[in-house]
Amino acid sequence: MTQHTTGAYDEELRDLVSRIAEMGGLAEGLVSEAVTGLARIDIARAQNVIFNDHRLDDMQRQVEERAISVIARRQPVARDLREIIAALRVSSDLERVGDLAKNIAKRVIAIDGQFHTKRLAFGVEHISEITLEQLKAVLDAYTSQDLDAAHAVRSRDDEIDAMYTSLFRELLTYMMEDPRNITFCTHLLFCAKNIERIGDHATNIAETIHFMITGEYLQEDRPKQDESSYIPAGYSSE
Amino acid sequence: MTQHTTGAYDEELRDLVSRIAEMGGLAEGLVSEAVTGLARIDIARAQNVIFNDHRLDDMQRQVEERAISVIARRQPVARDLREIIAALRVSSDLERVGDLAKNIAKRVIAIDGQFHTKRLAFGVEHISEITLEQLKAVLDAYTSQDLDAAHAVRSRDDEIDAMYTSLFRELLTYMMEDPRNITFCTHLLFCAKNIERIGDHATNIAETIHFMITGEYLQEDRPKQDESSYIPAGYSSE
Repeated sequence: MTQHTTGAYDEELRDLVSRIAEMGGLAEGLVSEAVTGLARIDIARAQNVIFNDHRLDDMQRQVEERAISVIARRQPVARDLREIIAALRVSSDLERVGDLAKNIAKRVIAIDGQFHTKRLAFGVEHISEITLEQLKAVLDAYTSQDLDAAHAVRSRDDEIDAMYTSLFRELLTYMMEDPRNITFCTHLLFCAKNIERIGDHATNIAETIHFMITGEYLQEDRPKQDESSYIPAGYSSE
Repeated sequence: MTQHTTGAYDEELRDLVSRIAEMGGLAEGLVSEAVTGLARIDIARAQNVIFNDHRLDDMQRQVEERAISVIARRQPVARDLREIIAALRVSSDLERVGDLAKNIAKRVIAIDGQFHTKRLAFGVEHISEITLEQLKAVLDAYTSQDLDAAHAVRSRDDEIDAMYTSLFRELLTYMMEDPRNITFCTHLLFCAKNIERIGDHATNIAETIHFMITGEYLQEDRPKQDESSYIPAGYSSE
């Protein structure tokens, strides 16, 4: 299917794919550590996430530099070109995932030592588990170039969005029940939003895989999205 | 400075730049309408933003298709290649800005007809004005290829971040003062966060302009960022 002939060129394309896989592993690890840090209010873990996020930034930059260099020297077309464009897009999504993990970690540090009730964070932990599964699944789909697996990830994103919307209501209820919960729950709300956005990046990656393999764009109008923005002001727990 | 010779090729590059300019105008318009919609709780305006956001998605897709086509057919190098990569990046930032405007508009609809006090939204309006100025300035810098103007936008982003952090505290205070404010202020918090992220996209565009003109990446460690994630849980208004 690919038309190029030189071994060095193949090697360059493989190198991009393996860098993306490495970024994916790192991004997954940061999300997982940030979420565990949140569940346990574990500062050391959170600081570790904050400290290591720059590695994803560095790797993204390297992928971009290499991708541009390959385009400039090899003048790829068709599938090869799409693979390189896909590498650029996926690395950008993964870099953003790292930023979102870092943001969660920063909130763990804000929460520490202050009034909080770990029980209130259960909902965030649950949505995080599903999202991490999505992230793993889509990275596997990228490595194995598995179109069906990518589509499965994309259609499951609705589940995360629905969970997020219900979590949003739940956290507002805790805030209304006891004003001491307001700041903690506000941080949890933003953590949940960050998780929901990580899910969106997994979906972006699924769509990029579709584009890479088929050369076609998926229909934009995936039944969307975070519906919490439609929850009326004045919503109460009744 | 550019090495290409054919008129048709020049035309293709100019076409990309003019499409980005068009996207920029539309993105600015959506942000401005969303913020005015929020200040006035004006549903028609908000619905208009939601309805028109897809135009940015369509335009981004077209820019991407054309950019890929130019790379494949013209095999650009050096500055030309950077201009095309820049078009890809900027169009992606502008598409995200449209999403953020749409998210603000959806919250306007959620707020409408429910308990709210317009006064509480003043802070969000103010940060929005500064952010819109930044967006306009960076789009002008892109069109005129003005490196100094791009750097000015980038350094001013701290101001938005500081305003956001102070606004975060202010909104928490309103929530603690009166539980009826909780849902409205939560929506305002997310609107403010969206605005702050629009500011980040303006900064991304400034960094892309730097890359396009100089071929160099800016140092990553711009004194960052939204500090609200460090506000301790249990923070009170005293």
